[in-house]
Formats: sequence, structure tokens, C-alpha cells
Amino acid sequence: LEPASDQQATRRDEILAIAADCFGREGFDATKWAEIAEPAGIGETALYHYFESKNHCLFTLLARSLGEWATTYESVLRSGMAPADALATVVEATFSITDAAAIENRLLVHEQGKLSTSRASGREEATRLEALAAARRIERVWVDFLLDAMRQQAIPVGDPHLLARAVIGLLQSVWNWYRPAGSYELGDLGRFYTDATARLVGLRS
Amino acid sequence: LEPASDQQATRRDEILAIAADCFGREGFDATKWAEIAEPAGIGETALYHYFESKNHCLFTLLARSLGEWATTYESVLRSGMAPADALATVVEATFSITDAAAIENRLLVHEQGKLSTSRASGREEATRLEALAAARRIERVWVDFLLDAMRQQAIPVGDPHLLARAVIGLLQSVWNWYRPAGSYELGDLGRFYTDATARLVGLRS
Repeated sequence: LEPASDQQATRRDEILAIAADCFGREGFDATKWAEIAEPAGIGETALYHYFESKNHCLFTLLARSLGEWATTYESVLRSGMAPADALATVVEATFSITDAAAIENRLLVHEQGKLSTSRASGREEATRLEALAAARRIERVWVDFLLDAMRQQAIPVGDPHLLARAVIGLLQSVWNWYRPAGSYELGDLGRFYTDATARLVGLRS
Repeated sequence: LEPASDQQATRRDEILAIAADCFGREGFDATKWAEIAEPAGIGETALYHYFESKNHCLFTLLARSLGEWATTYESVLRSGMAPADALATVVEATFSITDAAAIENRLLVHEQGKLSTSRASGREEATRLEALAAARRIERVWVDFLLDAMRQQAIPVGDPHLLARAVIGLLQSVWNWYRPAGSYELGDLGRFYTDATARLVGLRS
């Protein structure tokens, strides 16, 4: 038997997985709180033990998703690989994901606009700030990487902040239209976006 | 005196302008229907004469905004200009806009995910489909332009659908972070994105 706190953490992860799938497939607004409680096998009241509100659950998902992307990007872009190799590796990692993660990415791009409005509730606001901090980590690691690539003359000198936002925007935009079992496979997208990102940053070949 | 139908159309445009500003600045979910009625100088009940719901009002804004972008893109990208000139002109047009239009663009990128879920209400659904049709016009005009640029050997041959989505995604991503009176002016962004878009499509110099 797991200790109670581990059981709770496991249960919380199960609820998050169900919520990510519902929110991502049906849309956040269209999903009722009760629709998450039922497949999670708990009542709506018990659900409030884990999340204060539907928004708190959404922000928790966004903070986790952005935090995982920040960690992935940091591990590759700060690895000391040559810029061209690091770029190819990081774009490949972006598209080497499960269908569930692709649906979570769609949720992220659809709902991240909500992170720009502050919340009255303490727990919602704390989780919103956590998600924003992870988004800033993502921007910072790209800025540092691009600056370093400019110093190494692997890419032309330019504004690293604008270029970082352009690369992040380009890569994120995929999840607006990508659907598992649609016309494109993630492997095809990985190849296309590896070349597209290299062209966007002006990588010298 | 304007005829009643013109007066109604003018009033409807005033309401849309107020709604675009409120939704764009405070967020769609955070804006209450009453907050739009008050500055419009009408009661909540009268507001329902113009829009069935807050969602109907949002979809009307998205359909109008996407429709205007489709028309702008078509007028430049189908003008018969050389690909390099057409591309520079269209990106400049994207950033030669008012602050109010920039806020409306932010609303568009934050809320366009809602267009992927069908609605039960007839008027909401009709307006949603109108917005989706405008989004498809935007994609089509870019695909046609890129195909033609490939045939003219102005850009390398590749998948025009993926490339169109990449260009649209890159240009739209700006509105996620751009704020009037922020660190960047629209003129700077126009210059940066003209070069960035040219690199992304692989324009031969």
C-alpha cells in the first residue's frame, strides 16, 4: 500500500490526465467540472479537495506543461552542443511526443491567454504565477541560446528577444491545427519544422 | 436622420468596438456582459437585441477580424506583384494597424481555439462557421501565393500547406505578447517580421 500522501499525489495526477484530455478535446469552456469527476471516480465535492476550481485545475496543467517544456529546452539548449545540432535536437524533441501530450499542447496554446489576467483567488493566482514563471524560463533559455549562436557566428546578429519569441511562436502554432490521426504525422512535422526553424534563425549551412 | 436599419448597424458597430476592447484587454472570460452594456449606453436586455450571447458577440468579432485579414491578404497576395514585393507589402500591412486593431488581434489569437467546438445555438453556430470560412480563405490565399512563388522559383519547392500554416502561425504569434506602449513599436515589428518571413519561406535574395 502506498502512503496516503503518495496515493493523493497519484490520484491528483489521474485527475490532471482526465482534465487535460477533456479540456484539450472538447475545449475548456465546454467541459463541465462534473465531467471530470465522473471518470475520475470521485464526487464533485471530493474533486474540490484537489483543485479549488476548474480554473485552478487548468492553471495547474498549464504550469506543469510549460515547466516540462522549459526543462526539455534547457537540457538541450544548454548542453553545449553545436548550435545546428542543438536546434535540430530540440525541434525533434518538440515533436517526439505522445498523442496525449499533443492534446495537452493544444490546450496550452488555446488557453495560455488566460495567464495574462490576474486572479482574485490565492491558489489560482499562485498557480498562474507559477505558469508565467515557466513561460519566462522558456523565453530565457531561447534568448541565451540564440545570443550564444550569434557570438559563435552560427546565425546572423539580431535582436535575440524578438527572434526567441518568433521561434517559440512558430513552434507553438502547430498545436492550433495539429490533430492526432489527421493529415500529418508528428515525424513529418518534426522534419518540416527542423528546416523551418533553421531558416527562421538564419542558421548558416 | 439615418434610417432605422442604418442606426441599428451603427449601434451594432459601436457595441462591437466596446466588446473588442473589453474582451481584448481584460480577457473574454473576465468580461461580464453588463460591462459592455453600460458604456454602450443600453440595458442588458437591449443588448440581446444585437447579440444572442457573449459567445455570439465574440464569434461576430472573430468572423469580422478574420474576414478583414482575408481581404487584406487577398488584395496583396493576388495582385500579381513579384513574390518578394508581395511578401514585404503583406507583412508591412499586417503591422500597419491601430492600437485598437492590435488589441482585436490579441483577442483573435487568444480565443480562436473556441472556433473548433460546435455550438448548440443556431446563431452562434452560423457565426462560428462564418469565422471558420474566413480562416480557410486566409489559408487558401497563402497556399496559392506560395505555390505560385515555388513555380516562379522565388522560393524552394516544399509542402505549401505546411508552409502557409507556419507563416500564418509566425505572424499571428506576435499578438500573444505585443502590447501597445510596450517595449516594441509596430514599425520595428514590421521590419523584423518582413525579414523573418522571407527567411522562413526561403526567399532567394
